[in-house]
Amino acid sequence: MPTSAGRFYICAMTKVGILGGGQLGRMLLQAAANYPVETYLMENDAGCPAAHLCHHFISGDIKNFDDVYQFGKGLDAITIEIESVNEAALEKLESEGVRIYPKPAALKTIKNKILQKQFYKDNEVPTADFLITQNINELTNNSSFLPAVHKLATGGFDGRGVQVIETKDDISKGFDAPAVLEKMVKIKKEIAVIIAVSDTGDTAMYPAVDMIFDNRLNLLEYQVSPAVLPEKILWKVEAIAGKVVRDLQSAGIFAIELFVDHNDNVYVNETAPRVHNSGHHTIEANFSSQFDMLWRVMLGYPLGSTEHILPAAIVNLLGAEGYSGEAVYEGLNEILQIENVFVHIYGKKETRPGRKMGHITILSKEKQELVHQANRIKNTVRVIT
Amino acid sequence: MPTSAGRFYICAMTKVGILGGGQLGRMLLQAAANYPVETYLMENDAGCPAAHLCHHFISGDIKNFDDVYQFGKGLDAITIEIESVNEAALEKLESEGVRIYPKPAALKTIKNKILQKQFYKDNEVPTADFLITQNINELTNNSSFLPAVHKLATGGFDGRGVQVIETKDDISKGFDAPAVLEKMVKIKKEIAVIIAVSDTGDTAMYPAVDMIFDNRLNLLEYQVSPAVLPEKILWKVEAIAGKVVRDLQSAGIFAIELFVDHNDNVYVNETAPRVHNSGHHTIEANFSSQFDMLWRVMLGYPLGSTEHILPAAIVNLLGAEGYSGEAVYEGLNEILQIENVFVHIYGKKETRPGRKMGHITILSKEKQELVHQANRIKNTVRVIT
Repeated sequence: MPTSAGRFYICAMTKVGILGGGQLGRMLLQAAANYPVETYLMENDAGCPAAHLCHHFISGDIKNFDDVYQFGKGLDAITIEIESVNEAALEKLESEGVRIYPKPAALKTIKNKILQKQFYKDNEVPTADFLITQNINELTNNSSFLPAVHKLATGGFDGRGVQVIETKDDISKGFDAPAVLEKMVKIKKEIAVIIAVSDTGDTAMYPAVDMIFDNRLNLLEYQVSPAVLPEKILWKVEAIAGKVVRDLQSAGIFAIELFVDHNDNVYVNETAPRVHNSGHHTIEANFSSQFDMLWRVMLGYPLGSTEHILPAAIVNLLGAEGYSGEAVYEGLNEILQIENVFVHIYGKKETRPGRKMGHITILSKEKQELVHQANRIKNTVRVIT
Repeated sequence: MPTSAGRFYICAMTKVGILGGGQLGRMLLQAAANYPVETYLMENDAGCPAAHLCHHFISGDIKNFDDVYQFGKGLDAITIEIESVNEAALEKLESEGVRIYPKPAALKTIKNKILQKQFYKDNEVPTADFLITQNINELTNNSSFLPAVHKLATGGFDGRGVQVIETKDDISKGFDAPAVLEKMVKIKKEIAVIIAVSDTGDTAMYPAVDMIFDNRLNLLEYQVSPAVLPEKILWKVEAIAGKVVRDLQSAGIFAIELFVDHNDNVYVNETAPRVHNSGHHTIEANFSSQFDMLWRVMLGYPLGSTEHILPAAIVNLLGAEGYSGEAVYEGLNEILQIENVFVHIYGKKETRPGRKMGHITILSKEKQELVHQANRIKNTVRVIT
């Protein structure tokens, strides 16, 4: 059997584990079935969106040292689909030769918001000014820093653990635990960039994405890719995102969220060391999707192309306010009649207000068509009970 | 909970079973994860390409009445990824209210080559002239009908069960069992068309595909979609394919393979009542892939769009001659560097000469680029051991 790393590729199947079984794991496993790879997944809930799409499902707690260590022993590589995993176990596995994407050191930096902000500062990555508060008293003592955003150092996810503190009156809403107090930036635009890094240090950057927010509800309305940005701002965005990933010194896939303020300054908001909601359009819209790309990284293949096949928008399907229970997708049939629309339902049995239940991708050469259909979808589909 | 069939869709998950666990099942299950559906799969081999991608894997013999009947009881719908299933069990399940795609009556017609040819004749669908032979003596007695192709009535698959009988000297290669003796047509082109039919009789036809053969080896070299055909021939192709599907009177997805002769006559070669190799490019190249489309049919959604996003070609990766054993994909890394190429490896542990081990899709606006890359892939990738 040929064994050189050059023209030959050996198919004794690589064993790759995923920690976490949500929609990111689900889409990662859909993409895995294009390659010769044996997949392992650990998650507490056997009914989670990804559990049925792997070769080996292991019930376990991804935050528990022993569970993660036992899961990872004997695997060739591990990735995560959520940051809240036991990083000590990953460090031990890494020291024993298991390839981890992202590296535990990078994960450690990112998953603690205090360390993450300090990392930007230490590496001269532009980010909003901040203070560190250990408890509610320290927040009170820094009221001159308001208006600001209070972000819990650990444990926040999907909007939880983040609190806007406009004035002294809001201080009681702050966190009585280690947190970052971040100066509020007057945001003109929010942008996201996804970058893949191979084991050999090759990188591939996806076109920047426009994240369009409903300012009234402070909710992501839809995303458009590629972002419409003046060249100079785009250059800043790409330079900053590239620097973040270089400084993290880890292979894997990274999503960098950035703000543009009214003076066209660009700041990093936060980084995720994994596949990310802001890259879901790449499944249909780009030659190599973010999920395909991560498999290429983990299996040692060449990086894929981040070029667009067609521009795209996505709309997240969130559980509607006031509905908890078995999910019903109102308006789905109407949307499935639109030619250039792709539906992704995550297979979660129960909906809850704000829960990510699916997303819908629109492809079109025309920006107007993307925005039109995004709004139509938002006004048509509701996840209720 | 709303129950009307109109604007509301109920997500109490539909239970759908697949008989057979090869690459077609694998790609079908990749597509299933976009929808709320609970998947069941039956196959003897728990290591088959699709086994790990369903909610419920049931080990069983798809040719056995009891196995298929027990599998299907309690499911909402069943589809097949291979014709050689127990159709009597499907008939019983159908009579008990399980929706079967395709209908057992259509499957029965198609899976027996004698019945299939007779169906074309009865419905005035143009097809090559034929005789029916019950044994080798009847073949000998009809030597004036040569040159012809002898096709076993049942049990043939992927080239097995088909024998070219040019002259009397070849008669010993014929089948001593019920078979069709089909007059050899001088073929100018081979074309395939995939059509979806919904429960309500709506149809969606994919653009016709050019199947390019190596005449020397009589092997499919690659496929290009859409086919380049004079309008008049295309009309014939579409009219004939449409008639076949209408006359079969079944919902589901159907692949119709056709010949064009040197006088521009169009003949049906054969029909498959399922997703098909000639539609694999639709995964990336069309808005709704053949796999997505079959889920839409089975879940009662509107049919998707068969329009091209970009033209495409595919190359099948077959096990190389002379190699049997654990598969190695020579040249894969080189191909993965091409921007507009998508790799699908089916995850079969063992290769054998001629075994379908994967396929590679190329997307491009330029026909020349499609053909160039198809040839490059054919000359670069080899499945060996």
